[in-house]
Amino acid sequence: MRILVTNDDGILEPGLRALQAAAAELGEVTVVAPDSPQSAVGHSITVLDPILTRRVHVEGRFWGTAIRGRPADCVKLAWRQIMAEPPELVLSGINAGSNVGINVLYSGTVAAAAEGAILGAPSVAFSLEMGGEIDFQRAARHCRAVLDGLLAGGLAPGELVNVNIPDLSAGRPKGVKVVRQSIAGIDDTYQRRTDPRGRDYYWLEEAYDFRDPPADSDVIALRSGYITVTPLQVDLTASNRLAHLAGLDLQAGGAP
Amino acid sequence: MRILVTNDDGILEPGLRALQAAAAELGEVTVVAPDSPQSAVGHSITVLDPILTRRVHVEGRFWGTAIRGRPADCVKLAWRQIMAEPPELVLSGINAGSNVGINVLYSGTVAAAAEGAILGAPSVAFSLEMGGEIDFQRAARHCRAVLDGLLAGGLAPGELVNVNIPDLSAGRPKGVKVVRQSIAGIDDTYQRRTDPRGRDYYWLEEAYDFRDPPADSDVIALRSGYITVTPLQVDLTASNRLAHLAGLDLQAGGAP
Repeated sequence: MRILVTNDDGILEPGLRALQAAAAELGEVTVVAPDSPQSAVGHSITVLDPILTRRVHVEGRFWGTAIRGRPADCVKLAWRQIMAEPPELVLSGINAGSNVGINVLYSGTVAAAAEGAILGAPSVAFSLEMGGEIDFQRAARHCRAVLDGLLAGGLAPGELVNVNIPDLSAGRPKGVKVVRQSIAGIDDTYQRRTDPRGRDYYWLEEAYDFRDPPADSDVIALRSGYITVTPLQVDLTASNRLAHLAGLDLQAGGAP
Repeated sequence: MRILVTNDDGILEPGLRALQAAAAELGEVTVVAPDSPQSAVGHSITVLDPILTRRVHVEGRFWGTAIRGRPADCVKLAWRQIMAEPPELVLSGINAGSNVGINVLYSGTVAAAAEGAILGAPSVAFSLEMGGEIDFQRAARHCRAVLDGLLAGGLAPGELVNVNIPDLSAGRPKGVKVVRQSIAGIDDTYQRRTDPRGRDYYWLEEAYDFRDPPADSDVIALRSGYITVTPLQVDLTASNRLAHLAGLDLQAGGAP
């Protein structure tokens, strides 16, 4: 199996190394990842700038391609140029920090997997909730167990799955839950400061508290100590609103 | 009505001016937009850097806040800091270039509206297909007609709508169609070049051709000359795959 491994934290990060090692037992792994951290870049792609690439030997263990670009660029470029044949599986992570709830929308880790799904490969994003102890080796074993189950069950071309491992410093995960993505908001805040020239600037403060996430959601399951598995899609259509909008008179203004 | 207007092309662009003018007839408009073009940045937000802001007077017509950040930052910052009370409507655009099909995922224009929806306001993204003649004034009249229809029909808090105006150089739009977002892929390509130090770099080539978009999709309706209206959602859960995944043994590996 041809497997592409990428991430959004950067090619030298331990989460990627752990995922690469777990994937190498399943097939032939190609690593293409950003040369620097790309957190919260969402589904950015590089359109107007060149994408610089560089071959790197990571920790004396494997070769990969570091690119000066976004996580989604890594997958596009690997698919179109770097790999002789397209990957049969795209894995992204293991991200240092969870990607649940609306953070899924901001996540470069998930966007890289989504790009793999758009291009037609089954694609899985892996993230590890931060806590006391950060053990990517242990996290990778849980990722691998979930991945084995997904592969045994059959991942369709273009299928996209988001996996989150709970903070392992609290002990073993309580189990695996297949859950929805929450869309509960975050009460985040900015610090306002003034620069030496009198201009306002703002820093986003760290915020992890979701407002009333549903009990059956990824946010609650992860917080309760479960590994969360959420099937995602790249069709953003709100199907349940199509009929309502189709019933409206949308040329009311009679525009010329 | 308190209306926030933003875009991804930058605060000085004519598409934003046209949308600002159309919105000003409906309520009190606040403009917060990026200080430079932010195409294809998707749902990025600025987490690790400060967000610089600057008050600007645009073409002698209105004041706005230019920010060194992403389209989604504009909406978050306007909501949390710049506006005395949260907006009751968020409008993003008019983007120079269509945002249909999977380009919806890469679009900063759509991401800004999605951020408004996450925060709880009805939010609409507007984009204009490029063609021979670029007439944002005429495009804005069509946007306004669609918006009037949406408002008359009732936009719920957090409702997200993506509107595309066809190339107007071909004549009047044929009408308005409420359609799904296509997820058909794009056969895009990279040009490979070598820098003076022998390193490979790549340029993404322009590509607009979707592979087999469905007949009832935004891509086909826009290409056929219709204004497209697509309800979107920020819940990416692939609901139709939940039951399948829940039936798998995802702890098959028996991870420690």
